[in-house]
Order: sequence, then C-alpha cells, then structure tokens
Amino acid sequence: MRVGLVGLGYWGPNLARNFDLLADLAWLCDLDEQQRAGFSTRYPRAQTTGDYADLLADPELDAVVIATPVPTHYDLAKQALEAGKHVLVEKPPAMKAREMDDLVEIAAGRDLVLMPGHLLLYHPGVRKLKELVDSGELGDVLCVYTNRQNLGIVRTNENALWSLGVHDLSVILWLIGEDPVEAIAHGRDFLTEGVEDVVFCYLRFPSGKIAHMHLSWLDPHKMRKMTVVGRERMVVFDDMELERKVTVYEKGPWKQSEAYGEWQTRSGDIHIPKIDTSEPLRIECQAFLDLIAGDGDRRTVAEDGAMVVRALDRLTESLRA
Amino acid sequence: MRVGLVGLGYWGPNLARNFDLLADLAWLCDLDEQQRAGFSTRYPRAQTTGDYADLLADPELDAVVIATPVPTHYDLAKQALEAGKHVLVEKPPAMKAREMDDLVEIAAGRDLVLMPGHLLLYHPGVRKLKELVDSGELGDVLCVYTNRQNLGIVRTNENALWSLGVHDLSVILWLIGEDPVEAIAHGRDFLTEGVEDVVFCYLRFPSGKIAHMHLSWLDPHKMRKMTVVGRERMVVFDDMELERKVTVYEKGPWKQSEAYGEWQTRSGDIHIPKIDTSEPLRIECQAFLDLIAGDGDRRTVAEDGAMVVRALDRLTESLRA
Amino acid sequence: MRVGLVGLGYWGPNLARNFDLLADLAWLCDLDEQQRAGFSTRYPRAQTTGDYADLLADPELDAVVIATPVPTHYDLAKQALEAGKHVLVEKPPAMKAREMDDLVEIAAGRDLVLMPGHLLLYHPGVRKLKELVDSGELGDVLCVYTNRQNLGIVRTNENALWSLGVHDLSVILWLIGEDPVEAIAHGRDFLTEGVEDVVFCYLRFPSGKIAHMHLSWLDPHKMRKMTVVGRERMVVFDDMELERKVTVYEKGPWKQSEAYGEWQTRSGDIHIPKIDTSEPLRIECQAFLDLIAGDGDRRTVAEDGAMVVRALDRLTESLRA
Amino acid sequence: MRVGLVGLGYWGPNLARNFDLLADLAWLCDLDEQQRAGFSTRYPRAQTTGDYADLLADPELDAVVIATPVPTHYDLAKQALEAGKHVLVEKPPAMKAREMDDLVEIAAGRDLVLMPGHLLLYHPGVRKLKELVDSGELGDVLCVYTNRQNLGIVRTNENALWSLGVHDLSVILWLIGEDPVEAIAHGRDFLTEGVEDVVFCYLRFPSGKIAHMHLSWLDPHKMRKMTVVGRERMVVFDDMELERKVTVYEKGPWKQSEAYGEWQTRSGDIHIPKIDTSEPLRIECQAFLDLIAGDGDRRTVAEDGAMVVRALDRLTESLRA
Repeated sequence: MRVGLVGLGYWGPNLARNFDLLADLAWLCDLDEQQRAGFSTRYPRAQTTGDYADLLADPELDAVVIATPVPTHYDLAKQALEAGKHVLVEKPPAMKAREMDDLVEIAAGRDLVLMPGHLLLYHPGVRKLKELVDSGELGDVLCVYTNRQNLGIVRTNENALWSLGVHDLSVILWLIGEDPVEAIAHGRDFLTEGVEDVVFCYLRFPSGKIAHMHLSWLDPHKMRKMTVVGRERMVVFDDMELERKVTVYEKGPWKQSEAYGEWQTRSGDIHIPKIDTSEPLRIECQAFLDLIAGDGDRRTVAEDGAMVVRALDRLTESLRA
Repeated sequence: MRVGLVGLGYWGPNLARNFDLLADLAWLCDLDEQQRAGFSTRYPRAQTTGDYADLLADPELDAVVIATPVPTHYDLAKQALEAGKHVLVEKPPAMKAREMDDLVEIAAGRDLVLMPGHLLLYHPGVRKLKELVDSGELGDVLCVYTNRQNLGIVRTNENALWSLGVHDLSVILWLIGEDPVEAIAHGRDFLTEGVEDVVFCYLRFPSGKIAHMHLSWLDPHKMRKMTVVGRERMVVFDDMELERKVTVYEKGPWKQSEAYGEWQTRSGDIHIPKIDTSEPLRIECQAFLDLIAGDGDRRTVAEDGAMVVRALDRLTESLRA
Repeated sequence: MRVGLVGLGYWGPNLARNFDLLADLAWLCDLDEQQRAGFSTRYPRAQTTGDYADLLADPELDAVVIATPVPTHYDLAKQALEAGKHVLVEKPPAMKAREMDDLVEIAAGRDLVLMPGHLLLYHPGVRKLKELVDSGELGDVLCVYTNRQNLGIVRTNENALWSLGVHDLSVILWLIGEDPVEAIAHGRDFLTEGVEDVVFCYLRFPSGKIAHMHLSWLDPHKMRKMTVVGRERMVVFDDMELERKVTVYEKGPWKQSEAYGEWQTRSGDIHIPKIDTSEPLRIECQAFLDLIAGDGDRRTVAEDGAMVVRALDRLTESLRA
Repeated sequence: MRVGLVGLGYWGPNLARNFDLLADLAWLCDLDEQQRAGFSTRYPRAQTTGDYADLLADPELDAVVIATPVPTHYDLAKQALEAGKHVLVEKPPAMKAREMDDLVEIAAGRDLVLMPGHLLLYHPGVRKLKELVDSGELGDVLCVYTNRQNLGIVRTNENALWSLGVHDLSVILWLIGEDPVEAIAHGRDFLTEGVEDVVFCYLRFPSGKIAHMHLSWLDPHKMRKMTVVGRERMVVFDDMELERKVTVYEKGPWKQSEAYGEWQTRSGDIHIPKIDTSEPLRIECQAFLDLIAGDGDRRTVAEDGAMVVRALDRLTESLRA
C-alpha cells in the first residue's frame, strides 16, 4: 500500500513514523522546505514535494494522509477523493456539517475510504468502554459525561470546544450511536475575544440518554476522563492513570419494591481490567490500511465522522447564540 | 438566649445538641409523640410540645429553629417572624422566590434575624475560599464550578437540584455576590418520573463571571468539590479529603506578549493551608446567636438567602422548559 | 450468657455497648467511682462495683472481659480463669511469653475460653486476606509486610512495637501460622528515653516466608496497610481506604524459561472485592460468645494469642540488644 | 573538553546524547562492533574503537565516562585514572570498599576528578531535600526512610540491594553525611538462589539518626519515595508523582510541658514547592564537566562515593551473615 502524507508539522511526524512501519510511505508533502529536508533524511525512500498536486497525480499512490491545519482539511480531502485516493484526515475533517456531508457523499460515490483521525476511538481503553456498552454488561446506558480540563496550551484560533471537545464528542457519539435531539453549549472567552476557554456542553438523544462535556484549559486539575453511567454498572476511563485506565463499578441503582416505587442504591465489587498498552496511533493507522484492504465497514467510519461534525456545528451555533 | 426547636427528625438532633450547649434550649416541638419522649429524656430542661403555637405564644422565647420538612418551612418561618421571633430555618427556607421575598420583608420590617441554614457557608474550608476571593489573592475570579456526585440516597420527592444543588448554589452566590443574568439547567429523571437524578447548571453573572454545577446521585465517584479559577491563582475545596480540604494552586494563565496576543500558562507552588476542624454546625449555630445579639449584618444574611431561592426558582423553571 | 466487664476507660465503653446488645451485661467494674456512676445510668440492669472479687464470686457469671491497663492483664486474667470464668482480654494479654503460657495452660486445664482481643483478626478485610491465603489463590506466600505509621498519639509508657506492632503481628502470625525462626527489631527512642518511636521488625519463618513491620508515630503519612506478596497474586489491605479496603493484583513473577533460568514479571487485572462493613468489634464480641457456646476452636484461639506474645517478647529482646 | 565514553549498552546512549551536547564527545568504545557502527552514524565526529587502550593513549582526551557492566567498573576506572584522565563512572564504581578506597587514593594523588554517577543526587527534587535539611528548616533530622518497590525487572546477577539500594543509599548518606555505626540488612532470595529479591536495611549513625530502606522487585506497589522526618518538619520526595515531587509537612512532635514530659503532635500547612523539571542526567553531566573545570569540590564527590561503597559492602556482609 503506497501512502502519501501532507503536513509535516505537530502531528505529521507521528503519522510518518507509523506509516513507514506499516506501509510504503511514498510521498512527504509540506510547504516548508526545511521541514521537507529534515524528513527526507529520515525517510530516504519517500519522495518529498511542496506541491500537493504531485501526490494526486501519482497513479500508484493509494492513499493520502492529511495532517495540515484544520481550515485546509476539507479542501485537501475533497481533492484527494476526487483524484481517487483513500483519505485519512486529522480531526475535524471539516468545519461545517455540509462540507463533511459533501466529503462523505464523494467517498461513498467512489467507494473510497474517508476516515477521520479520531485517535481516541482506537485507544484500547475506549474500545473496552465500547465493548462493555455493546455487550449490555452496563445495563441501559443513562448518561455519559467527560472531563477534559487542564492548564495547558491556550489556543487563540480554535476554542476549547473544537480543540478539546472533538475528542470526547467522537467517543460519546460512537458509544451512543445516535444524533442528539438537543445540543446546547455554554461558555466564555476569558483570554482571547471570541475564543472560548471554558465550555460546557449538554446533549440529549432520541433514546433519552444524555451526555455532558466539561472542557477547559483554565483549570488546576489535569483531567482526561469519561464516565458511563449504566443502570446496572458504571465505568470510568481515565487517561491520566498509568495502570488503571478503565474501572468498572459493580454498582447501580435498582428498584427495591414495585409497590412503593422506592429506589435503593447498590454498591459492589470494583474491577480494573488490564488494558493493552499498544500505541493508539499504531492501531488507528493499521485500521486505515485495513479499511483500504476491505476489512471493516468504510461507510460507517465516514458516517460516524459526519455525526461528529454535525454535532460540533450545532454546539457552535448554540455557543454563539 | 432562649431557643425553641421545631422538627426532631433527620437534622433536628444535631441542632438540639448544639443549641443545648450554646444557649438555653427551651422548647422541643414535633408532631410525633415518641420522638418528643426520647428528646425529653435527653434534654430534661426543655419543654416539649406537639403544638407549634406553644412556642409562638411563649413571650420569653427569643428564637425559633425550624428543621421540619421543606414544604412547611415558609409557613412556619412566617408565623415565627410574625410572632416576633428570630428564625433559623433549614435550607431552603422557601420553595418560591416570592415566598422568600415575603419572609425577608417581614424580617426587615421587624428587624428580626432570618437566617437560612446554609451549613457550607460556616465550613472553615469554604470560609477560606471566601477569604482568598475577597483578599484578591486569586486575581479576578473567572469561573466557579462544583461537583456534588455520588451513588447515594435517591430521593423521590426532591430532585438533585434542590437536594444537592442548594449547597453549592449558596456558596457560589456568596463567593460571587451577584444575581445571575443567565441561569440554565439541564437534566433527566431516570428513576422517578419528574424527579431529576442528574442535573447540570450553568450561571452567567453581570460581571462576566460564570459558574457551573454538576449534580447527580447516579455516579460512581463520590465528589463534594468546588473549584475557583482566578486569573492569578486557582483554589479547590474538596470536602472528601480529610487533611487536604483546601488546595491553592499558584498557577494561572498570563499574557506573555501584548504584541502577539499570545497566552502562556504558568505553573507554580501548591499550598495546602491547615483548616480548622471545628464542626461547621457549631459555628453556624453560634453565628445565629451572634446575629441575634447584634453582631454581624442580619440584613445581608437574609438577602443572601433570598438570592439562593431566586436562583433555584429560575433554574427549576429552566429545567422544566 | 452473663458477662462482666472490668475497666471502663478508653476501650471499655465500646465493649460495654456491644456486650449489652449481644449478651447479658451483668457487672461493670472500675476503680473510679465517677466512671461507675456514668455507666450505671446507661446500663441500669448491670451491677457496678469497684471490687473485682465481686465478679469472681458471682457463681452465675459466665465470662469476664478485661479492658484495664496492660500491666494488669495477666493478673486479672489469671484470677478469672482460676475462678472458672471464660476470659476475653485486651491485647496483649501478658507482657512476657511465660506469663502467657501460664494463662494458656490454666485455660486448657479447665477447658475455658481465653481469647485475646486482637480486633484486626475480626475485620472483614483481614478475614478476606486470610481467605485468599488459605484458598491458595495467591500461590505460595513469600512475604507479608505492614505499615502502621502516623503522626499521632505519642505514648510515653509503651513503645511503638507494643502499641502499634501488636496489631500487625497478630495478623502476620495468623496468616502464616508459624513461630518465626528469626525475630529482629531495630528502632530508636527520639522523644522519651527508653520508649521507641520508630521500630522496624524483620521476621523469618521455618517455611522460608518473611515478614516486616514498619511502625512509627513520627511520620507524615497516615498508613494502616498490609501487603501480602504471593507467587501468583498479591493483595493489599488498606484500612485508611473507605471503599477499597482490599485490592487483589493479578500479577506476579513467573519463570519464563527453565533453560535459562530467566524471570519475567506479569501484570494483569486488579480486583477490589466489596468488603462487608460490619463493625469488627461486634464480630469479635460475637466470636467470644460463640466460643463459650462451643462453636469454634477455643484451644487455637488461645494458642494463637500465645504466639503473638512470644514474638513480641523476642522482638523486645532484640530491640534492647 | 574532550570526553570518551566506554560502554554503549543500556545507559550509554543517554550519556552519549548529553556529552555530545555539553562537550566534545571524542571517543565511543564498545566491544560490540554493531553497537559501534550504530553510534558512529549518529555521532559522526566521534572516533569509535573496540580497544579501551585507544582512549587512554589519546593525550588530548580529558575525561573517560564508564558505563560498562558493574564488575568491570573498578578496573576500567583505575586504568583511566592512572592514564591521567578524569573519570565519571556509573554506580557503583567498585564492588568492594577497599577497591573504592584505592580509586579515591589514586584520584587524590593526581588531583583528578572521580565522580560516581549517582543520578539521584542531581535530581532537582532531591536537591530540594538537601537544601531543606542543610538550612535547618526541618529541625534535627531524626529518621530517613526510603521505599523502592515495584514488580519490575528481576535481575539474576545483582540483588535488590545493589540494583535498587544503591540509589537510595547515595541520597541517605549525602543527606546525613556520616558513616553508619550500624548497618544491618535482612532479605530473601525467592526467585534466583543467592540473589535477594526483597531486602530491608537498617542504618544507625553516630549522631543518633537512623535510616531504613525497603527494596523489592516483588511488589504490587510502584514506589520510589524518600521520607525525611525532622523534629520540626517532615519532607517527602516521591519520584512517581508528576507535579508533586516534594511535599513539606509543617508538622512535627513537640514537647508541651517540661514538667510532665508529655509529648504532643502538631499538624499544620502542607507546601508543595514547584520543582525544576530539568533532566537530572543533564545536570549530572554538567556537574562532571564543572568539576573538571575546577568548580565544586572534587575531593568530596569522590569521598561521598566511597562512603556509599563502604555501606553497600557492610550491608552485603550483614545480608550474608
């Protein structure tokens, strides 16, 4: 499988390293000549270029991996799909729901892979959450809430919803599998006008499930945590833990007596399953190659990505209201 | 100071114990005869009665302490004030903003103490928060958020907002000292129809400050925590900690360069001041007696209580919308 | 069952409360008249006396519970046994191994219960440890170590070994079930001459197992913890935890290859079983009554107690050397 | 400054990277040709060789850095010193006290630097401990104890004392600055005959201070922790913490009343100073270069190293007894 990478900045090096191991890294593209020179030494078998058209014009190139700044994602992804290339594009693949729908349609029409780089979906801990939800072990899922808080990089061009929330949202929607009927965001821009630093999001789904995100880069705590409250069991994924990423609580509320409608709560054992420590990005890159090879459902992957952009779009509207 | 207590159930015994120590516990009133008998043995100097009118008719009685079920608070408090008694009433003192305004007006008209039993306001850890906010040590307060979550008592007659949120709200409003311009609540009633188990509240204030509450009794974590994010420092009050109730983080965001508008974050020392371990209820009861004796600002205490009921009222409306 | 209690000080009230519930609390004995008066009001059915002989002379009295200062234990226990009474005596029952052997012999000769009040042995968390050890789930037990550290009450008449170590030692010897072949203690008396504040103990057993105790009341940490390292699994009992008293680690070392003699370590799931929250003292008192009634092995209980005193005796000698 | 490195295995690459940045990395020496080839590509300016004599014969070479297996340290260090080179040698520099004395003497005779690579002594958190001890802020130091426990690499040629204990011992002796009058070790070889997996060490010093080390690679906990108990304050260095490496407890015992000889304990504020996150190895390498340049006391550094080997030697004897 021949793969071309565009965008060698912040995240690009990690993608280069993985695709060099898993596939044939054929092209490295960046506008910055010095960046290209550095990568050329490390990956001598790859061709380098400053012109994206070179990748699209290569008839032997199977796939394009896009790790450029967010505002360029849609355009570059569209060009690649139209040139008949499979596409892995960093999140979010587009900034408007209708742009993403556009990409999904083109990919579907040509039966190409369109995969957004939602890294968390390939984290073994999050996959454990999904497995617990899907197996019914938790009972009905009532509520999913996430905390992504820290005193960290304060962006001035992208707010906490787009910068932090996209991670949690991809997981929430993947676990619940529904488009929300209500999507409300509140927040404030304390440091840079128009760029919210603290955002709270509330989602309600057709099935009655609810979700919440607490997003902030002005916070004394360092949290990357997701909690799933099921009627039978509850699960927490805590990405700040080293050896206790996933904790399953054998506790839940249950109705003691139909007659009186009284609720009791029940506590029980706690179980911390060992979670595979494989690099999530390695798994993600392999999943992309597998989709190209025909393993997995490429249609669903693209549509899940569209669900995320739709929700981000609606939350942004709510935040601005 | 002669004090009469009405309501000997859940919280009443604690109030009896404290007022017996700090003042002259003159009357014990409850509809349940057995309850009265038990208390009579323990507090032989107090008179017991099943008739609230006995307290109001006692010309020597200075104050009435009300620890009956919530729906009765307003009525009993009103009667006491009209009988010329000072009143300490468990939270919330009323279930509607206009009822609370009514009580505040009567108390003001007769210059009587009307104090809601907001226990957290008398917790030495919360008082430390207040001191840090008021001294300016935190810099501008940007955001206050609270977490009150647990798998605990599931009430069927009072939702998480009224049962859990009243605690946090009293502190948020005390720290910020403003009526919110926006008060929005989201939540769901999973166990008992019409009684929300999980509630998220967002408040925005005239000064631009914001606040958030995460309230739930369907949760694997046991949290009773308040975080204050200031522009210079951040503080956390964690009531689940035994010896580390208050943590001050010497970190905050700050603008590095006016020219580029870039923000940097700064981390620093962490300080955990020793917090007095006095019983908050003892301090609360003493504060009530002090107010009666003329120490402290009785008008502000009543008005702070009214601010809490107003906010609860608006949040309830938002939740029902 | 008619029970008499001698010693109404520090621990006595807890014993009185429990035996009043579980049996017929017939006598309360203390030299202090005021103490007796207070207890008399609370337990009107019990007779009070300042003369221990009154208990021994009561032919209807089945058992004596001794909660007096440590130096009096041996003598009071001996008198009670000689008067034909079953005995529960606070730890340690004697300060010298030969005194304890004496008590065991008298009890055995008259087939009386002689039970030392080793509270931890009745803690549901410690019983879980014992169950895991005895079932073989841990594999061979290699090492047991305990940490009992704090900045707490500094005694001036009893060192950390006797004051703190007696708890851990009772558990270690119960889990391992052997008299040590080596018993070495090191420590220092920083605050009061001759009274060690910090003590480290090392024990080696005939089977090759080892144990260690770290005992201190000059410590910034508050620890009450026991760790059992088995060849297959490891278990921790942490009495400072509220809901996570016992943690089982599915990890251990194992030999990968016989050929090279290389060892690998293996990590795995972590399991935190729900532990019954019954009051350990209630269980202890009931166990005493059961032994009198003929349930359980009264001989073993006395002999286990003797093993503890023997080890304390040897460790004290080592510490003084 | 021209530096030659011998031993390119486990730790060598880290030393190469740092000395390449801080000095002139002139020689790379290893018996393994493939290792040399790999390093040669990365450090093209350095000469490579399989013959240690090449380094010693280079008259322009100022210093030799030794990162070979432990049993070779003494011999290689001796040769280097005799060839007039300054020496940085991984810990421990020798396996016998008299060998280390030998090295110290040669270095002193020729006024050469002989620095053992005790990495922890250059950790900013440990330097904070030292500063707190030396400034008198802790009051008299009473006890230092360390915990280095984990389920980790199980060595078959080096026991837990030499493999883990050397780290803690270097810090304990640096903080206390005395040769112990008592040095006792207990432990057991559970996995490989003759190689202790669990070791407890007790040290007593002329000043009356004591120290203890708990060393194990058969443990469910992952601990790298040092606690210093002073009469006024207590400090903990916890290397498993990310942002809370050093915690200072404003608490200590103090004598309330001379008359009764009673001790009280005092609790107070907790302070967590921000610790510089510089790489300790960078600081260590720079310290070596500084010593060569004449900054710092090269005599003390060598003698501190000798104190460590002497203590290890005595503890080993005790363990074998």
